[in-house]
Amino acid sequence: MMSLVCATASTAATQDVATRYGPAADRIIAAALADSSGYQRLGELVDRFGPRFSGTPELERAIDWILLEMSRDGLQNIRGERVMVPRWVRGSESATLVSPRRAPLHMLGLGGSVGTPPAGITAPVLVVRSFDELRQRAALARGKIVLFDVPFTTYGETVQYRSNGATEAARVGAVGVLIRSVASASLQTPHTGAMRYDTTVRRIPAAALSVEDAVMLGRMYDRGERVAVNLRMNARTFADAPSRNVVAELVGREKPEEIVVVGGHIDSWDVGQGAVDDAGGSVAAWEAVRLLQRLGLRPRRTIRVVLWTNEENGLRGATSYRDRHAAALDRHVLAIESDGGVFAPQGFSVAGSDATVAAVTEIAALLQRIGASTVRRGGAGADVGPLVQRGVPGAGLLVDGTEYFWYHHSAADMFDKIDAAEFTQCVAALAVLAYVAAEMPEPIPRGAATN
Amino acid sequence: MMSLVCATASTAATQDVATRYGPAADRIIAAALADSSGYQRLGELVDRFGPRFSGTPELERAIDWILLEMSRDGLQNIRGERVMVPRWVRGSESATLVSPRRAPLHMLGLGGSVGTPPAGITAPVLVVRSFDELRQRAALARGKIVLFDVPFTTYGETVQYRSNGATEAARVGAVGVLIRSVASASLQTPHTGAMRYDTTVRRIPAAALSVEDAVMLGRMYDRGERVAVNLRMNARTFADAPSRNVVAELVGREKPEEIVVVGGHIDSWDVGQGAVDDAGGSVAAWEAVRLLQRLGLRPRRTIRVVLWTNEENGLRGATSYRDRHAAALDRHVLAIESDGGVFAPQGFSVAGSDATVAAVTEIAALLQRIGASTVRRGGAGADVGPLVQRGVPGAGLLVDGTEYFWYHHSAADMFDKIDAAEFTQCVAALAVLAYVAAEMPEPIPRGAATN
Repeated sequence: MMSLVCATASTAATQDVATRYGPAADRIIAAALADSSGYQRLGELVDRFGPRFSGTPELERAIDWILLEMSRDGLQNIRGERVMVPRWVRGSESATLVSPRRAPLHMLGLGGSVGTPPAGITAPVLVVRSFDELRQRAALARGKIVLFDVPFTTYGETVQYRSNGATEAARVGAVGVLIRSVASASLQTPHTGAMRYDTTVRRIPAAALSVEDAVMLGRMYDRGERVAVNLRMNARTFADAPSRNVVAELVGREKPEEIVVVGGHIDSWDVGQGAVDDAGGSVAAWEAVRLLQRLGLRPRRTIRVVLWTNEENGLRGATSYRDRHAAALDRHVLAIESDGGVFAPQGFSVAGSDATVAAVTEIAALLQRIGASTVRRGGAGADVGPLVQRGVPGAGLLVDGTEYFWYHHSAADMFDKIDAAEFTQCVAALAVLAYVAAEMPEPIPRGAATN
Repeated sequence: MMSLVCATASTAATQDVATRYGPAADRIIAAALADSSGYQRLGELVDRFGPRFSGTPELERAIDWILLEMSRDGLQNIRGERVMVPRWVRGSESATLVSPRRAPLHMLGLGGSVGTPPAGITAPVLVVRSFDELRQRAALARGKIVLFDVPFTTYGETVQYRSNGATEAARVGAVGVLIRSVASASLQTPHTGAMRYDTTVRRIPAAALSVEDAVMLGRMYDRGERVAVNLRMNARTFADAPSRNVVAELVGREKPEEIVVVGGHIDSWDVGQGAVDDAGGSVAAWEAVRLLQRLGLRPRRTIRVVLWTNEENGLRGATSYRDRHAAALDRHVLAIESDGGVFAPQGFSVAGSDATVAAVTEIAALLQRIGASTVRRGGAGADVGPLVQRGVPGAGLLVDGTEYFWYHHSAADMFDKIDAAEFTQCVAALAVLAYVAAEMPEPIPRGAATN
């Protein structure tokens, strides 16, 4: 029923989007492209605090700083909403090839992995290229370290080895697991990321090798050499620690209780600066709202910046936001997320009904001059996921993703990877969608996703 | 006079190169492109021995293996010609940002650098972007670590900061020097390389930071923050150690005393596998000669594979070869080098007279079908340099250099960076030039380079 009602509203609300909101959109875009202060602020954030891993003081100090800066910006209802987050500590770690020759390997433990005994685990390596191959060769896995030397295809496909490799390897008796880093290009840079254990099998330590080292071990293995590795990881999981979702608002002038969310996640992995993933998206969302406020464009509804904590290894910020605001989700008219990097924006991936997609498509047409008017149906992002599941329309910023998995979860995710002009285009895209969605007389139509 | 004589000879010798040698060249190219065994051998070499740094047992073991394999190939006059090489040992090392926040930096000490005291040197950082700027701000350098945060333009231009940065910084009272890695792309990968000291100033420790970390320090510095670093290097230089130039021949059927050299350098830096720099060039040169022998193409003159040792940090292999063979240099008709990576070959850079360039141009025309017929005047490579200085015509293999400085002197210089098809094209290019230069009735014309 909701779907029906809103689809009707939608038709009326969006038919004249271009006429009604074109001038405001042009003004927003021009102002965004002319203002480098958000980009500078992004640089200051990541240089000042470095990576912002869940459970670390650095994340909390970064949040304190953001809250202070937001109050200097004159945003409203600024607050940190408490969230308990996992605290996994990498500790010292290494992987060393010990046969057929001795060499240090480029590795990063996977987030959530158990550690090894202090001297590490030394074992022969079984190299496989798929879960199927592991099952076929299961008899060879006992007592071995299994290396999933799997080439990157898509993230969704390849990340399974990072997520589930330890469980699948433990199931056949392996004592440790290594993966080829989930990355689409490499210069000896290992990529970390979350993994999970299954309760039915033993927890074995899990780490990613650089692409180069993984394929080297694969070559040695294919030549019939005895490949053996010492894997040493001091990783530990401690009790959950307090963190916060950052929330700030541009309160709506007419329907302040109706909310357009725009955000990114403020936590990152513990290497690099988490600049692309996702300080960039966080600061772009924040900057979008600051820009509207600076331009005096206070829309009908409230625009709420949400910088979720603990996206990377728990999604606790997102689930906590959903639970804390459960009673208000009916009044969340759109949840916009930027977590694919702040590269050249292309448009939005929309989670919702046909009417939702149609409405966002009309708004995105206002972004033609910056090349960001493509709208496709799809996921809207991890942090708005729990809201989408409760019926809130979601929109994820689509960007040129060429480079994203070069940097993702690695020490190379640094501020220099972000282009100032592309960043301001992302700000413009987020600001226009948030503004128009908050300003239109009727809310963005809801209704269950049809795909 | 030499020049005049040879220019005359050249005209006669090269006018019908295409007609005379086209069929042999086509046969060589077809055979090279159809044979992956050189590529496999390259993989085996670098995987088996890893990096081959001067003064290490790994280099000598790799040389032993090559000599053995060459005798299995049936090459002639196989030998290791003794060369004393520097023995610089990196030891443990680190650079840590200590202000404005604490963070590990991605670094590699520069080859030849002195070490620091065990606790390292902790000092504020002065960031400059050129030698000029250092001179202008010389008064600020005393007691500081100078960081040359210089963007990559060309290798020749940018490498000066790696070579001479320590001397210039010490001259104005600095206690250490850091450079932005000399690299045209980066994923947090530092790049080492040789540096040298001036005898007139104090020897201060020198290291390269990754591009990302160098520009981060530059940003912090530009914001007016106090940037300080702890640099800890255990580097030491020991007494020279014995190594060898690898030499093997396909002895000429008619003028065995006249020699065409084709080679690369077998040593590498102490990180990665030195696959691109320069195991690839070495094995391609070796494979070119093996291929000619396999095809029964024994030319008029001798083709000599030379795999020079210690190109990277001393050029001792090249100078030793020149000195040991001083009496025979007049009978070296051409010295061909591959040290720019075994990427898609484009032709040759020729050091010699106009007549030399013209002769190589006619031969390279035989390589049109693999896109390697471009010939330009220029340097022919570091290892043939000492021969070129003594009047031997030189030809360096030109390749698509797009990626070369992504990997150069870094841990990312691994076998997976080399494409099998491109490698075989390089083999073809080297084999055709070496064969025709060794087969033509008259030698490649000599004469002083005119540029």
